[in-house]
Amino acid sequence: MAHSGSGARAKLLDSDEQNKSKGISSMIRILLTGLCFLFLRPTCSSGSKILVVPVDGSHWVNMEVLLQELHTRGHNITVLRSAKSWYIPSNSSIYTSINVPMLEDESDRNYYNKMLLDVMECRRAPSFMRTFCQQHLITSMLEKGHKILARAAAKMLDDPVFIKRLQDAEFDLMLTDPALTLGVILGSYLKLPMVFNVRWINSGEGHLTIAPSPVSYVPVSGSELDDQMTFLERIKNMLHHLHSAVEYHVLVNPAYSDLFQRHFPPGTDLLSLQYAADIWLVRTNFVFEFPRPTMPNVVYIGGFQCKKARPLSDELEAFMQSSGEHGVVVMSLGTIVSALPPEVTESIAAAFARLPQKVVWRFEGEKPSSLGNNTLLLKWLPQKDLLGHPKTRAFVAHGGTNGMYEAIYHGVPVLGLPLLFDQFDNVHRLKVRGAARVVEAKSLTKENFLEALKDILETPSYRNNIQRLSQLHHDQPMSPMDTAIFWIEYVIRNKGAAHLQSAGFSLPWYSYYCVDVAAVFMALIGAFVWASVLICRILCCRRSRRKNKVKSH
Amino acid sequence: MAHSGSGARAKLLDSDEQNKSKGISSMIRILLTGLCFLFLRPTCSSGSKILVVPVDGSHWVNMEVLLQELHTRGHNITVLRSAKSWYIPSNSSIYTSINVPMLEDESDRNYYNKMLLDVMECRRAPSFMRTFCQQHLITSMLEKGHKILARAAAKMLDDPVFIKRLQDAEFDLMLTDPALTLGVILGSYLKLPMVFNVRWINSGEGHLTIAPSPVSYVPVSGSELDDQMTFLERIKNMLHHLHSAVEYHVLVNPAYSDLFQRHFPPGTDLLSLQYAADIWLVRTNFVFEFPRPTMPNVVYIGGFQCKKARPLSDELEAFMQSSGEHGVVVMSLGTIVSALPPEVTESIAAAFARLPQKVVWRFEGEKPSSLGNNTLLLKWLPQKDLLGHPKTRAFVAHGGTNGMYEAIYHGVPVLGLPLLFDQFDNVHRLKVRGAARVVEAKSLTKENFLEALKDILETPSYRNNIQRLSQLHHDQPMSPMDTAIFWIEYVIRNKGAAHLQSAGFSLPWYSYYCVDVAAVFMALIGAFVWASVLICRILCCRRSRRKNKVKSH
Repeated sequence: MAHSGSGARAKLLDSDEQNKSKGISSMIRILLTGLCFLFLRPTCSSGSKILVVPVDGSHWVNMEVLLQELHTRGHNITVLRSAKSWYIPSNSSIYTSINVPMLEDESDRNYYNKMLLDVMECRRAPSFMRTFCQQHLITSMLEKGHKILARAAAKMLDDPVFIKRLQDAEFDLMLTDPALTLGVILGSYLKLPMVFNVRWINSGEGHLTIAPSPVSYVPVSGSELDDQMTFLERIKNMLHHLHSAVEYHVLVNPAYSDLFQRHFPPGTDLLSLQYAADIWLVRTNFVFEFPRPTMPNVVYIGGFQCKKARPLSDELEAFMQSSGEHGVVVMSLGTIVSALPPEVTESIAAAFARLPQKVVWRFEGEKPSSLGNNTLLLKWLPQKDLLGHPKTRAFVAHGGTNGMYEAIYHGVPVLGLPLLFDQFDNVHRLKVRGAARVVEAKSLTKENFLEALKDILETPSYRNNIQRLSQLHHDQPMSPMDTAIFWIEYVIRNKGAAHLQSAGFSLPWYSYYCVDVAAVFMALIGAFVWASVLICRILCCRRSRRKNKVKSH
Repeated sequence: MAHSGSGARAKLLDSDEQNKSKGISSMIRILLTGLCFLFLRPTCSSGSKILVVPVDGSHWVNMEVLLQELHTRGHNITVLRSAKSWYIPSNSSIYTSINVPMLEDESDRNYYNKMLLDVMECRRAPSFMRTFCQQHLITSMLEKGHKILARAAAKMLDDPVFIKRLQDAEFDLMLTDPALTLGVILGSYLKLPMVFNVRWINSGEGHLTIAPSPVSYVPVSGSELDDQMTFLERIKNMLHHLHSAVEYHVLVNPAYSDLFQRHFPPGTDLLSLQYAADIWLVRTNFVFEFPRPTMPNVVYIGGFQCKKARPLSDELEAFMQSSGEHGVVVMSLGTIVSALPPEVTESIAAAFARLPQKVVWRFEGEKPSSLGNNTLLLKWLPQKDLLGHPKTRAFVAHGGTNGMYEAIYHGVPVLGLPLLFDQFDNVHRLKVRGAARVVEAKSLTKENFLEALKDILETPSYRNNIQRLSQLHHDQPMSPMDTAIFWIEYVIRNKGAAHLQSAGFSLPWYSYYCVDVAAVFMALIGAFVWASVLICRILCCRRSRRKNKVKSH
């Protein structure tokens, strides 16, 4: 609080100079920030220097929304991006970028189209095995990915000029998405306060990094379970938990061991770097996620990227209106998979053709032969604005977290068509709340897709349930975006938030789990039993000796 | 949200009629509530009927502050109070009260003065044993207390006229302090949504009711430990944890078994009733408390009762100003213990007499003979306003949570003189943060009290540390009072908050702790080992038979 006064104001001027964003909007910003200083001092830390290490693809979509808001509040943002990035532009009015030669393989978009075929094969396995088969695919990807990341991190830390440049910039904060490890490693190396913008929490869904997560009711990511598990499901969840622990120790962490040895104090591992996060901004909340324990440095900001719908273009608005009372179905499968297998595409198109509704479909590639007149294919669509349109009746989605929150925000029921990664977990969350149906690509036919679509469109409970979720989602003390900004600025103002971090982090595992204490208790009980037996024996011996003596007399 | 519109507005008018609080203030309230409906609909649920079962003494002090705020927002409050209550007035402009014949023994204030002498004796035990001795005293008190409470609860539930009256009132919410069980039992019986206003969480500091609480870093209440424990301290904490579990199962819960059998479904126990709480408003936060896991239905509102200092009376202001540059020491030992042993009082008075500061001491009983001219004795003092006065240099306090938060709020260092219950835990929390010194009544002398006082007054670190805590305490996204009100109204609006409750509640202990899953794993591993050994033996036998055959040929 104390240092958010004149010093911070001077920093604000610095940042404005650097951004060179002049004119009226900049004037208004300075004025607002000034007012903010006068009336709301504790909540302002404008003009700070924030280093951002984002993740490409859909993760960037939400990180960018956050950066826009931080920029509006006068912060000076530097983004570290791969020179080959798909999504993260090198030139932006809201940040300065630094190109780094990292993630050489992520730019291969066909990689995920190929992966989809493997996942579809996996999903044909028996129900219990399916998630493990899929996890195995992810493990292989992780193995490769972490090696690439470790090389990229080593390249950075081994480059004294690059590191000097970052050190000289005197950043106030590292804001990163820990789905990739580069930001975590770099932030720890530069000893910067750290804020994570994160969807999933690794290692058994965060038992160690976040809070104790009883396997009996906290489903591990990838398990496709919820918090009400049968006995068999609890066994499955435990296996996923153990798998994730083994994966971390055998595969993920060892990829970095050389790097840690060379650049960090002895005993450093990936978990210990994650412990250093001051605040975890988690992109869910308990309208969507199942209730679970969390430490005080975890803040839920689910749906922070959602906004009220803006008007559509004239053409699109005319298309929406042409749907009449039947309304419109919106379909989008996100950023990662660019093409479904042709037979799946044909079935979907044929099913759509049978609907009285109109359909807007975000689509790349060759036009399906079975496409109906009611279906509009678009390479890109204003998803948020379409979901908020009063004519929209259902959302056919792959189940990315961003899309799920937009559906919740606007109260639109979902037909989930999960393809990869957490998408199966995400659509399951809406399904158990009666707000979604799920159809899988591996078994999708024109008939079952149409049946599910009609169910979603005609059964009122789906709409009622998602609107109940929407109502709860909007019923928060503060908007998720304001919450996110507050905690980012909190960490900057207070130079960290160590007082919110778990003391469990500093304990070795045997102390954390009280194994040492239990051992002492067992030893004491053992000693007591042994001593009791010994005393009994001695007493018995004496008695029998006495008896013998009596007899012998 | 939907039902906070016209229906809630009609309710608001009802409540105003009932309260009969007319005039300008009421007009302004209605106007504000109207504006609130227009602009902030999701955060309004005014005009609801709230049944409150508070706890007498210092707990009432903060409950009343909350009720005042709820009244201001147009809610209609009914308070259940003991006919013999010390603190809770039967007539109030903010609530209607219902007298019940409960807590016959709590009105004996000398009980706690006597208990203090027993606690002082306990505190003379060796360091490791001290807290257990004290816990034993509390256990005896609990045993007696829960029997009284169970009788009082039975009297209510057995009285059909009383219950009918409550049912007919159609309350929207039970707001209670679960330190006493009456509100929890009554709220569950009436099937009302429930909000707890709570300081401590029972059963091993809430492992089951709130969230998993690893004994390795979550100190159990009464243990006087913090989150950084040595091995011996972790053993102590585990013993306190086990003690609290045994206490619950052997002593607390059985007191109610007859009541539960007669009035609740089979399998009901006290914990299961506590699980039903929709929101736990916990009267701490992580400026004061050590970071610990919590479930999403736990909301921290520490210091919600704190307010900016108001001007003092002319006499008191003149006294404060007369202290000159030395300033003033404020002393108050809370509401429960009315008199310290005379020798302790004399030592304190003599030490005060040696200070260059002036002293304001909340004091009942005979004036100490060693009292200096610099010391003003008052039967009651405006504690909040004195702590916020610029002349105040230190606060000599017993360590009640309310007082500790007022010290934090105003940034005044504390000399703790803990007497009973959680006061030892509370002052320990400020001590480990370098914001307090602690002197115990059992060993208090003029010399050591004076030394500690001078240390607090002359060493700048105490003031710096508590001001750092104060700064962090004020640096919150919303004021704790607004947070409390938001969540109370949230529960009313949404008729509960079941979606924030742990699914772990519905599991039997062996499933919660995965004992059943572990048993299956052990059995499978056992069967695998047994089968391996069997196969090896069969193979070995065959070989040796062959060898024998070869030999015999």
